[in-house]
Amino acid sequence: MLPAGRHVRQVLIEDGVLSAAGKGTLFIECSTIDVATARAQHQAAEQAGMEMVDAPVSGGTAGAAAATLTFMMGGTDSAFARAQPICEKMGKAVIHAGGAGNGQAAKICNNMILGVTMIGVCEALVLAETLGLDHQKLYDISSKSSGSCWSLNTYCPVPGPVPASPANNDYKPGFAAEMMLKDLKLAQQAAQAGDTATPMGAAAAALYGLFVNGGGGSTDFSGIIRMIRGN
Amino acid sequence: MLPAGRHVRQVLIEDGVLSAAGKGTLFIECSTIDVATARAQHQAAEQAGMEMVDAPVSGGTAGAAAATLTFMMGGTDSAFARAQPICEKMGKAVIHAGGAGNGQAAKICNNMILGVTMIGVCEALVLAETLGLDHQKLYDISSKSSGSCWSLNTYCPVPGPVPASPANNDYKPGFAAEMMLKDLKLAQQAAQAGDTATPMGAAAAALYGLFVNGGGGSTDFSGIIRMIRGN
Amino acid sequence: MLPAGRHVRQVLIEDGVLSAAGKGTLFIECSTIDVATARAQHQAAEQAGMEMVDAPVSGGTAGAAAATLTFMMGGTDSAFARAQPICEKMGKAVIHAGGAGNGQAAKICNNMILGVTMIGVCEALVLAETLGLDHQKLYDISSKSSGSCWSLNTYCPVPGPVPASPANNDYKPGFAAEMMLKDLKLAQQAAQAGDTATPMGAAAAALYGLFVNGGGGSTDFSGIIRMIRGN
Amino acid sequence: MLPAGRHVRQVLIEDGVLSAAGKGTLFIECSTIDVATARAQHQAAEQAGMEMVDAPVSGGTAGAAAATLTFMMGGTDSAFARAQPICEKMGKAVIHAGGAGNGQAAKICNNMILGVTMIGVCEALVLAETLGLDHQKLYDISSKSSGSCWSLNTYCPVPGPVPASPANNDYKPGFAAEMMLKDLKLAQQAAQAGDTATPMGAAAAALYGLFVNGGGGSTDFSGIIRMIRGN
Repeated sequence: MLPAGRHVRQVLIEDGVLSAAGKGTLFIECSTIDVATARAQHQAAEQAGMEMVDAPVSGGTAGAAAATLTFMMGGTDSAFARAQPICEKMGKAVIHAGGAGNGQAAKICNNMILGVTMIGVCEALVLAETLGLDHQKLYDISSKSSGSCWSLNTYCPVPGPVPASPANNDYKPGFAAEMMLKDLKLAQQAAQAGDTATPMGAAAAALYGLFVNGGGGSTDFSGIIRMIRGN
Repeated sequence: MLPAGRHVRQVLIEDGVLSAAGKGTLFIECSTIDVATARAQHQAAEQAGMEMVDAPVSGGTAGAAAATLTFMMGGTDSAFARAQPICEKMGKAVIHAGGAGNGQAAKICNNMILGVTMIGVCEALVLAETLGLDHQKLYDISSKSSGSCWSLNTYCPVPGPVPASPANNDYKPGFAAEMMLKDLKLAQQAAQAGDTATPMGAAAAALYGLFVNGGGGSTDFSGIIRMIRGN
Repeated sequence: MLPAGRHVRQVLIEDGVLSAAGKGTLFIECSTIDVATARAQHQAAEQAGMEMVDAPVSGGTAGAAAATLTFMMGGTDSAFARAQPICEKMGKAVIHAGGAGNGQAAKICNNMILGVTMIGVCEALVLAETLGLDHQKLYDISSKSSGSCWSLNTYCPVPGPVPASPANNDYKPGFAAEMMLKDLKLAQQAAQAGDTATPMGAAAAALYGLFVNGGGGSTDFSGIIRMIRGN
Repeated sequence: MLPAGRHVRQVLIEDGVLSAAGKGTLFIECSTIDVATARAQHQAAEQAGMEMVDAPVSGGTAGAAAATLTFMMGGTDSAFARAQPICEKMGKAVIHAGGAGNGQAAKICNNMILGVTMIGVCEALVLAETLGLDHQKLYDISSKSSGSCWSLNTYCPVPGPVPASPANNDYKPGFAAEMMLKDLKLAQQAAQAGDTATPMGAAAAALYGLFVNGGGGSTDFSGIIRMIRGN
């Protein structure tokens, strides 16, 4: 797992891992990187007579330690069939999202939803404070109705309703804000390359950018509630 | 149920319903209106020796017909205790959200989350199209992971994954976009009155405003995916 | 000049200034308040046989001291004709914007442009820093081309290009961020009442809300560049 | 002038223009492209013993025909000194913005301001309609006060106040919306690469994306007022 597309390209192509590997080798590339680079690597692997899956994960270091990661895989049926039993040893779910690059596509689409809903939930909880509505009451109502979402139900960004959420641990990650920002920027990059307009995704990327540039990068991503609240 | 705070005030105060009612009357006010007006009515009722709950609902006309509405109630314990058994005849859930006006507060906080997540989900599905990722694949992955939310899981804004969702019925409501816009504007009004900044809620209100002004008011609120996609 | 519509209504109506004044009195109401309240006051004055102009100003305390304010007036031709020579003693420009409330309308439309462009200019200057482009160079180019605007040309939010701008005085106002926020909220209130969608105006209001809630309220409104930059 | 960085790289590097040219050749590269690619080309030219300026223009086809373009140049003092007299034959202004790539940097910073202010001006004019304030009145006031900007003063997006503006010619470009979107996306790309948060620039890019995807690409960029207004 490497930080960005350029590092993966460096290792695979320029540093020679691909050319040094034997024919038929299966590459399981678990970095979260941009879709275009992932697809270019698939092509390079295929031309070299090898197989590849792009297989970014969700679940964080805790999920890795507990072998409960989710793998989102892009690649041929054949490559997926080979990679699946290996990754199942580290994960609770290994999902075939389609052809080359679709693991990355699934991850950034999912995390764009996540970033948008997290800020929306933070805003609703802060508005509730303003209106004199208890966090727990809003939690009880929304987690069971149309406001239900993972960001609220299982990762609630205020202390109390979900004891295990980072809000109860002074917003120690968990999933750091700078990692969320990275994923939101990948989504924006893909949207712009594909002539897709994503106004809420763009707003979420900008708000996490303000939060990270203001010093919140290593805070859990739910800690953006402090910026929304003003403290 | 009346459209806005001014209508409720007109009927209760100016048209004389409150002054004509007997002491101890319980008012169950089910309109979705602004929090400030709701609280002023509670005060007027209390001064007249009566009880009131503000009790906006979610579930739409279908929920009303099937007696599966959710009531979010604000008012004293005593008023709630009287109103609860009555509303349970029309609803599957009757929740006490706190004191006067908190029913309205809960509803607008919840629906602000809903409006924000719906647009986020629409953007992710359109981005998936651009990237060659099937709607069903993204649904399968996100509905079970951190992108999970009511807007995706049970009201999916593209045809297919959730057969009962309005997307399968040419976006006939359901919950009309103009009603979502009304609730988002109430949330903005409350946020501004309370010096709360809600950037995503504001963006959602603006985007639903563009959609409604462009002719989409009577479309289901999930139909905003057409504006996001450009057709 | 009073802070908000409710104070003006209090003084004029409830405290009895209007009823105590003689027939034909001219009211020059210079507060910046919401359009709806301003129009209601015109109506009350007219019914009492008096004349009124709503006449909010721009130019700040410095403009008032130097008698260089700009008055934007709403009211009848007759009321404007009476008010104009009086206000010219305090202002360099007295402009008739149309009927009752149009002074307020002009001010909030103008200041919505101002708030939007100021943040846009701040972002461009911070992006220039990132790209290694001197502030002065961008100033020289944009102030003479299509990026030309008052926020850049005469109120530049970084030290240097415009020596008199608050950026050269540690962002002491000038025009405080909390006053800009007030005007942006009035614009949002008017937009929502009129079913108008103003996505950039809404974003500007939300960003100034974050800035003010984060402690920047008494800073000059150009100081929002610090939040954009992250320090 | 080529559409994007990849085309310029193709022609200069891969198609061999750079290797075929004689030592000391001066390249005047007038495409509007991303800053990173522009800087890579400067480096390639320098290594080949040649000089280069990146020199994007503003002024459109009309400016080219009338020789009134503005050139924003990045490069060494020496390269600028050679390029300046040549470009002055096609332009009214040739400005040295700094080292390699700074011509591109200046253009995207400037055009980000332009895109943001244009939408802000459109919103203010639509809000004025809602409030019963004449376009001409708002123009007269704001073009001379703190709302003054190029988008309003010289390119007013409603018919009337500025007879030569595209609004008076059914929004025929002028400067097409798809070109504005291209520049706003270049700005977003640079901002993301540089870890800069530009919330208003991001919102402008998203709104022009919605406008272009909705069919407005070949309309003048001031025509986005129709989307803001809802018709």
